[in-house]
Amino acid sequence: MTSFQPRDPDWEPRVRASFARQAFMRLLGIEISHAAPGEIDLSMAYAPDLTQQHGFFHAGATTSIADSAAGYAALSLYPKGTGVLTTEFKINLINPARGERLVARGRVVKPGRTLTVCRSDVYGIEAERETHVATALLSMICLEGLDD
Amino acid sequence: MTSFQPRDPDWEPRVRASFARQAFMRLLGIEISHAAPGEIDLSMAYAPDLTQQHGFFHAGATTSIADSAAGYAALSLYPKGTGVLTTEFKINLINPARGERLVARGRVVKPGRTLTVCRSDVYGIEAERETHVATALLSMICLEGLDD
Amino acid sequence: MTSFQPRDPDWEPRVRASFARQAFMRLLGIEISHAAPGEIDLSMAYAPDLTQQHGFFHAGATTSIADSAAGYAALSLYPKGTGVLTTEFKINLINPARGERLVARGRVVKPGRTLTVCRSDVYGIEAERETHVATALLSMICLEGLDD
Amino acid sequence: MTSFQPRDPDWEPRVRASFARQAFMRLLGIEISHAAPGEIDLSMAYAPDLTQQHGFFHAGATTSIADSAAGYAALSLYPKGTGVLTTEFKINLINPARGERLVARGRVVKPGRTLTVCRSDVYGIEAERETHVATALLSMICLEGLDD
Repeated sequence: MTSFQPRDPDWEPRVRASFARQAFMRLLGIEISHAAPGEIDLSMAYAPDLTQQHGFFHAGATTSIADSAAGYAALSLYPKGTGVLTTEFKINLINPARGERLVARGRVVKPGRTLTVCRSDVYGIEAERETHVATALLSMICLEGLDD
Repeated sequence: MTSFQPRDPDWEPRVRASFARQAFMRLLGIEISHAAPGEIDLSMAYAPDLTQQHGFFHAGATTSIADSAAGYAALSLYPKGTGVLTTEFKINLINPARGERLVARGRVVKPGRTLTVCRSDVYGIEAERETHVATALLSMICLEGLDD
Repeated sequence: MTSFQPRDPDWEPRVRASFARQAFMRLLGIEISHAAPGEIDLSMAYAPDLTQQHGFFHAGATTSIADSAAGYAALSLYPKGTGVLTTEFKINLINPARGERLVARGRVVKPGRTLTVCRSDVYGIEAERETHVATALLSMICLEGLDD
Repeated sequence: MTSFQPRDPDWEPRVRASFARQAFMRLLGIEISHAAPGEIDLSMAYAPDLTQQHGFFHAGATTSIADSAAGYAALSLYPKGTGVLTTEFKINLINPARGERLVARGRVVKPGRTLTVCRSDVYGIEAERETHVATALLSMICLEGLDD
């Protein structure tokens, strides 16, 4: 993993303030557990509301945490006065999404002026053990005048 | 769009019962608005809890409804005694996800014994007007002994 | 399918001239079989050189024709003095790619100033019969100063 | 990267024999440059025939090498008497594909009885320098009775 130079020295409060305004993250109980330039980890505790018909985390919940981790990883490298939107992504759900919580690790693969390509990997955490639950590849767009 | 022959005559109550067991769908306020073999439409009313930082539906919410519509479209064609899991998908978010509600139209593209390929299109509904918000391509796996 | 208004009245000679400069299309024997604003069909005759180990068209050949049909569908709507690059795509290979030839139908789903989202469907043609071989979802970027 | 245990002790000659039967790999001048269980690297020298309209490697060529590296990485872990087919993949083209040659590194992310998920990264090599050209996420299916 390369290390990235943020273009906005105040990237961290900006990322945290934007995240705090995402009502959907609150609804799902998702929190930031790690923040560095180009790297955001999010954590979501198990709750019955987040499940599908077999009691695992719903693919929609798994995807939501994966996407948001990547989006904020991208935003951490954006200049001041710009905002982030996901333009597209692909996710492979490779193991049942279970555990006390899911952790998503969003990482910038290739920053760009317009498009930033990210990876996001989701892990189910049970006691000490991590299971790789999903892997995603995402494109984030940087929008001027959409202040995040 | 081809028309499909269901392998289980009781496909519809089975789809509705499985959907009713998805707590996550309830959390997001998602309901079935159309059901035919290989075709499921879902509807999600706007709620502040479902938004991202600019007040649009969060990409995670948009994706959750897209994925579930496709999953149940696939399940409608599965034989009795099997269950559905999403193995992977890709989604393009092509317009801001706003409106009084989002509707996702899940359609089977290619049914298969193991893998069923689906498409899912999401529209934002405002008054009479539909905006195409997202388009997704998804692979669903049919699992024996995972009764949905 | 919506009908699109080209921004360059000379879009067709521009698309054909750009296509003619793609040596890789020549190597694979790919030709334009239909051109309209936002719609390009390409055709590739079967040749032993294009096959994988079981005698079908190689996934790489199937993908190449799918991607190029979409790329030129996007370019047909671009303003003069701009060029097209694929930024990303996803393809599902849904049936064995066989037949006398493959035809790819690239269609613009959502044109945009920067990103244009396209769909591309590939069919195997044998006698009169068409088999749906692959379906793809693609993002094309419009670059100024990269004259196509 | 985890290390994988092959299920067929003769995996390597099997992979090499299958690869040698892919006429399309020969057409593109692609060769195996590294083989280990779950890991295949392929190499493709620059040739004018492989280019698009701006002289870079065509996205179809870049994709073909990415897909094949992943497919053979999957096959290296398959039991005897089975074959590999790509069911779907997604690729992000993150830098212009140029250089004396492209190298694709296919790696198994999650082996499975039916589906094996792989990653494939493509690099452009110029003198000593590597540029990350593309990153892909792929699903490979294991088919019995389709001897590779």
